[in-house]
Amino acid sequence: MQAEVEKALSFVANHPLDVVCAGRTDSGVHARCQVVHLDSDSGRTPFAFRQGANSRLPGSIAVLWCQEMPQDFHARYSARARRYRYTILNRGMRPAMQREYLTWERQPLDADAMHRAAQALVGEHDFSAFRTVHCQAPHPNRNVHDIRVWREDDRVIMEVQANAFLHHMVRNFVGSLLLVGRGEQPEAWVAELLAGRDRTVAGPTAPSSGLVFLGPRYPAEWSLPPEVTL
Amino acid sequence: MQAEVEKALSFVANHPLDVVCAGRTDSGVHARCQVVHLDSDSGRTPFAFRQGANSRLPGSIAVLWCQEMPQDFHARYSARARRYRYTILNRGMRPAMQREYLTWERQPLDADAMHRAAQALVGEHDFSAFRTVHCQAPHPNRNVHDIRVWREDDRVIMEVQANAFLHHMVRNFVGSLLLVGRGEQPEAWVAELLAGRDRTVAGPTAPSSGLVFLGPRYPAEWSLPPEVTL
Repeated sequence: MQAEVEKALSFVANHPLDVVCAGRTDSGVHARCQVVHLDSDSGRTPFAFRQGANSRLPGSIAVLWCQEMPQDFHARYSARARRYRYTILNRGMRPAMQREYLTWERQPLDADAMHRAAQALVGEHDFSAFRTVHCQAPHPNRNVHDIRVWREDDRVIMEVQANAFLHHMVRNFVGSLLLVGRGEQPEAWVAELLAGRDRTVAGPTAPSSGLVFLGPRYPAEWSLPPEVTL
Repeated sequence: MQAEVEKALSFVANHPLDVVCAGRTDSGVHARCQVVHLDSDSGRTPFAFRQGANSRLPGSIAVLWCQEMPQDFHARYSARARRYRYTILNRGMRPAMQREYLTWERQPLDADAMHRAAQALVGEHDFSAFRTVHCQAPHPNRNVHDIRVWREDDRVIMEVQANAFLHHMVRNFVGSLLLVGRGEQPEAWVAELLAGRDRTVAGPTAPSSGLVFLGPRYPAEWSLPPEVTL
């Protein structure tokens, strides 16, 4: 994704440029919204960047807006929160339509139990129990602002916001919550996992296909569009 | 789609078989639900057909249920209605995510005006104004049960149910309603088009990508699942 965006924007700027992303996404994870910043002395307007990039980008990527920012704005470091959604199709038969945006679970899930169990994750914690061994973050502490699990017909949806996420943290939350939802673990188990900080006893990493990065969130002072403002 | 389903079901039955579909869909149109019937003396149970077919079908097709039916049931002739949804992404920038399920319209649409204009289409009418020249139906009369257009954030959605549809009828409804939504034609124009029965003065055929066949509907006497029962 990043390489495609850099290629398209470099074409518009007529000089090579790098972009800085608010957050990385695993392969197979869709981003509904991503924010990047770049430096350019090309003199091109934000409108020219947006329109020009869209005409060069593949159909899977679209630039929605582009604006000039103060020099001290940084797409990654200025973001105060990131938000993800995970969608589980919960029915006996596998999905056909929308399958690239869903994870399938055939056993009936208790979404309310998952929601209650997930509340243990809210707050500033050491999330080592939900961190892949490949995670390169310097420390395992993150602050989960809110997490919610609910059912809409045959879908169980989880949304979570944190200041930042460890590698695979959202998919590991889901992997353990699925065990609670299927009744294989009690609700209190999630709190125990968190306290134990042991990745090897938590649930497996849930598939990437249900995950969507809803985007980063910035303080209102940056005057960014409402969908990325806290 | 039909060929894939026949191949998978024939494998389970261990004899060649044909299926009869409730309704055809154009290339590029998704079906959220389709109903087919087949005759087989294989002795396989509905459960075996469902599970066996799902293991042979490509990921884009899933069998959701399968049940034995009286001899006089016919997937096409027993259906009393068909339902479609058309989804328009109405924003300045083209879609990236979900683009295979959307049609993009950059000019602001007045969904309420589209809804009011569409009410002229309800009832038993000669729909020649909305019928492609390739339509092979013996007559142009259809009975539109209901049609609704509404906005959800940056999407404008149309749902329509009729006893049956002419070839491209839904996409032609949308093509003309878009002209009303953009303010290029008055609301009363749709009623005039219908009365004039002249395809050449109506709007263009809207793209296939926004269209989803929601499925056929049968009388309750057939004891089919609720989603396909009137």
